Amino acid sequence: MADLPELTVQGWGPSSSRVATVADREDGAGPDDGVLELVPDSGDVLPRAARRHLSRELGWTPRSTPPVPVRDIALAPPRLPGLMRARFVALLGEDAVADDRLTRLTHAGGKSYLDLLRRRSGDASDAPDAVLFPGSTEDVAAVLRTCSEHGVVVVPFGGGTSVVGGLAGTDADDRPVVALDLRRMASVRSVDVPSSLVTVGAGMRGPALEEALSSEGLTFGHLPQSWEFASLGGYAATRSAGQSSTGVGRFSDLVAGLTLATPSGVLELGSAPASAAGPDLLGLALGSEGTLGVITDLRLRVRPKPRSTRYEGWSFRSWAAGLAALQRLARHDLLPDVVRLSDPDETRANLRNAAGVGARALRGTLRARRRGDGCLLVVGWEGLPTIVRARRSAASSVLRDGGAVRLGRRVGESWARHRFAAPYLRDRLLDTGLLVETLETAATWTALPTVYDAVRRALRDALTTPGRRPLVMTHVSHGYPTGASLYVTVLADRDDDLPLQQWLTAKRAATDALLAAGGTLTHHHAVGVDHRPWLAQEIGPLGVDVLRTVKQRLDPQGICNPGVLLPD
Amino acid sequence: MADLPELTVQGWGPSSSRVATVADREDGAGPDDGVLELVPDSGDVLPRAARRHLSRELGWTPRSTPPVPVRDIALAPPRLPGLMRARFVALLGEDAVADDRLTRLTHAGGKSYLDLLRRRSGDASDAPDAVLFPGSTEDVAAVLRTCSEHGVVVVPFGGGTSVVGGLAGTDADDRPVVALDLRRMASVRSVDVPSSLVTVGAGMRGPALEEALSSEGLTFGHLPQSWEFASLGGYAATRSAGQSSTGVGRFSDLVAGLTLATPSGVLELGSAPASAAGPDLLGLALGSEGTLGVITDLRLRVRPKPRSTRYEGWSFRSWAAGLAALQRLARHDLLPDVVRLSDPDETRANLRNAAGVGARALRGTLRARRRGDGCLLVVGWEGLPTIVRARRSAASSVLRDGGAVRLGRRVGESWARHRFAAPYLRDRLLDTGLLVETLETAATWTALPTVYDAVRRALRDALTTPGRRPLVMTHVSHGYPTGASLYVTVLADRDDDLPLQQWLTAKRAATDALLAAGGTLTHHHAVGVDHRPWLAQEIGPLGVDVLRTVKQRLDPQGICNPGVLLPD
Repeated sequence: MADLPELTVQGWGPSSSRVATVADREDGAGPDDGVLELVPDSGDVLPRAARRHLSRELGWTPRSTPPVPVRDIALAPPRLPGLMRARFVALLGEDAVADDRLTRLTHAGGKSYLDLLRRRSGDASDAPDAVLFPGSTEDVAAVLRTCSEHGVVVVPFGGGTSVVGGLAGTDADDRPVVALDLRRMASVRSVDVPSSLVTVGAGMRGPALEEALSSEGLTFGHLPQSWEFASLGGYAATRSAGQSSTGVGRFSDLVAGLTLATPSGVLELGSAPASAAGPDLLGLALGSEGTLGVITDLRLRVRPKPRSTRYEGWSFRSWAAGLAALQRLARHDLLPDVVRLSDPDETRANLRNAAGVGARALRGTLRARRRGDGCLLVVGWEGLPTIVRARRSAASSVLRDGGAVRLGRRVGESWARHRFAAPYLRDRLLDTGLLVETLETAATWTALPTVYDAVRRALRDALTTPGRRPLVMTHVSHGYPTGASLYVTVLADRDDDLPLQQWLTAKRAATDALLAAGGTLTHHHAVGVDHRPWLAQEIGPLGVDVLRTVKQRLDPQGICNPGVLLPD
Repeated sequence: MADLPELTVQGWGPSSSRVATVADREDGAGPDDGVLELVPDSGDVLPRAARRHLSRELGWTPRSTPPVPVRDIALAPPRLPGLMRARFVALLGEDAVADDRLTRLTHAGGKSYLDLLRRRSGDASDAPDAVLFPGSTEDVAAVLRTCSEHGVVVVPFGGGTSVVGGLAGTDADDRPVVALDLRRMASVRSVDVPSSLVTVGAGMRGPALEEALSSEGLTFGHLPQSWEFASLGGYAATRSAGQSSTGVGRFSDLVAGLTLATPSGVLELGSAPASAAGPDLLGLALGSEGTLGVITDLRLRVRPKPRSTRYEGWSFRSWAAGLAALQRLARHDLLPDVVRLSDPDETRANLRNAAGVGARALRGTLRARRRGDGCLLVVGWEGLPTIVRARRSAASSVLRDGGAVRLGRRVGESWARHRFAAPYLRDRLLDTGLLVETLETAATWTALPTVYDAVRRALRDALTTPGRRPLVMTHVSHGYPTGASLYVTVLADRDDDLPLQQWLTAKRAATDALLAAGGTLTHHHAVGVDHRPWLAQEIGPLGVDVLRTVKQRLDPQGICNPGVLLPD
């Protein structure tokens, strides 16, 4: 396993060391009390006041619910036949085939609340029997052919950051499973600066790509919350969206081409800059979640590093006023590159948890203007200074016309500093007896308010019991000309007896509600296992059948990530 | 056939009446000598000097080669069995089933040079046996089921403007053929102003859509040269691009959803504003060219009418300098909404043919600056005045840095006035013994110069004979961050003995050359019959197989536009 970067055992142990890593990189030497911190610093999980408040609001009793230590996990022996293991060693080399306990555990499942609950309880039943580390498209193609021939399931493993069970599919035939970890295929193969294109291995991660591009004065700019861990191939396989996607575009918008290795052969898809040569097969590979094969190479659009970057905060009196203003911006093509509008519940929680001198000042400002907490909007502009100036000025007029008040740059910069922090916070909240999960959808501007109401109502109804009720916080995270996404965070007192059922019931109610109200099944989390039962509602039974037909052609033995995406 | 708009018998007769129609609508009362006219007015096909020059340059002898009159076309009797005809009448009504001579002739083939040559020679072998005019998605679905059951081929007919033989497929089993003309499905069904979405019947045409949107202060903005005739469903089926696509986006970028009726059922595809629910099936319907079914309804993104519109001309000394400047604009996201850079040959022809006082002044200006003809760039900006101002100012700096000289608004406005005129001019040039055809491709900025050279060389080599050589004129018509499209117009003395072979040889050479140099098979003309032999080169044999598999699922009897898109 030499030369492979260390993989953190996420979800198993305490995550404070990772919080420190983030703080170091993002903030420099240490926290600066003069700035506004929209998430708590790493000392306490929650400021005492917030903890008291949450306890009162949720009916939650803070308690210690630590995960089972790694050493106590019972892991079934690897089921890969010796002959198969030998074949893989012959194909890839001894170093590229691992079935030791730690490697298998660190390739088990993803990061959904359900994944974490299982893992924390000591359930490692979704661990693969072995992990392979191929070094090339040819390696991957050979592995897929071999596995197809001998009935071995292949689960591609990127960063392990799926939050919809993308790594937790169940094979109906219960065949042995290998995880395919592409971390050895993680280099920049070529950079075409005039065409703003780079070709990279699909196992590369965002930070390494940004570092490689930096010396050319370029950036990629895809920044989802999973940025530190997720692989570029994983983004492609799940139609990811990042925090700047409103301006930069979704990940799929940035893919000019890719290589998809399948059990039936290798597809080279995409013709830059554009083609009218028939249906879009590139779009069929994007979002295929490992069910058609493995994405091994990507040709991505990059751009010059922005010369000007500006984040700032605004405040609306109400959610309706905020949505109306964003809709007007969208209609006139004036949306900033980053847009994040928090509803009153999320705004209140953010302000309550915010630390530092800046936070006190902000709370004072809002009080003085008699605005209450209202709804916080974080916006960001990036690009050439003159263009940013013109866009920002035009957008500011629309925001002011819509009743918004500018809060200044500290709010926006605090958000930018902590943009990757929430998952760390979640791990620690889970230690204290809380249910913490997120879900997301998107809807047209017209349907958005209805979808918002429907999801909140469904979650509240499902998670309210005598003496307990959930906190449901929502923000708009991506704007489009025709609508926007909603990102919902749920906190509740965990049902210690039936924690999985508690969330499954709530999730089912929320999904039914958002689809009925006109929302999409998922805006950027993908389908995985969790959204599978509703796929036919989104694309129709015939649409599902078309996908099955394509899978049958490319993966006739059904070895590629079975149990994911396609309903049974 | 009451209530159906009149259909012009294009390509059969003289087209001067249509030229007059365009002139009326675009120019008002009549030509204005004070403005610059980049195409000749309707009096003569070519100014005498241009005709003399072309004659010398091409080795072309102007001669009269009129089309066979409509009355002299021999048309085989309709082959649709009486029982089938009766079934269609029972399904759709007597008025919606036509097999009279004129209706069949007006639904024969498209507008490629090969289509026109055949039609002008009196060959109507590609005329359908009957034309059906369904009124709803249910009608279309019922027709497709019936045709699938009884072995009748269905060719969807939009505006009949395909230039790649999209209506000229040959059925291997030689079954009877019905054309499906959706002109009765041509209304706006709903407008969602806040979400910038309209739902329309696929038979609607661009002008009617713009008229319907105008009262809401909206525009769609898709303006290909076929705009007056092509249907919205046709744009979707062929992945069309329009003259403002650099800014507005390709047609496929503007489709939020669509209904695809297939022999196996109806698909409702697309989830606005965005979804991560698996592979993109909407992208599979777009560009399917009638081979998977018939697009019956479209949900399209519209936008507010631009408050500011500005077209202007610039001049570069060389093609290389022009490309370099556009590439720099693209890289910094500064491309104007309309971009059209003509190479020296096209610029020279435009200036030579330009009429009016303005043209003389322009020629004088260029001479005075000792620039020769150089390369003409037409750019257009649309949108909010402050944003247009900032973008235009930043772009102008880049253009000036790249050595361009501003020519002012008259050049740009003349282009905008005549943006739909070229096809009319072509019909009349065909009457004088000329070969006139266009082809197009796209490539990354890095590959673009090589592709340009390769296509020109291939066309010149193929069309040069003793005493004769072609004129090959090229422009960039659409810019992207990663590359641009090339649009090539070819004029040559027609080989009166073997006109089809003359062009087929040249087209084959050009296509081989552009693919070898890294160009895409087609940027916006689609595949049709003409590009079919090269599809596997663009998407691979396995890619073609995936499309075949999808077709087999949706159209098991292969009745949907056979002989088009998919190679045998």
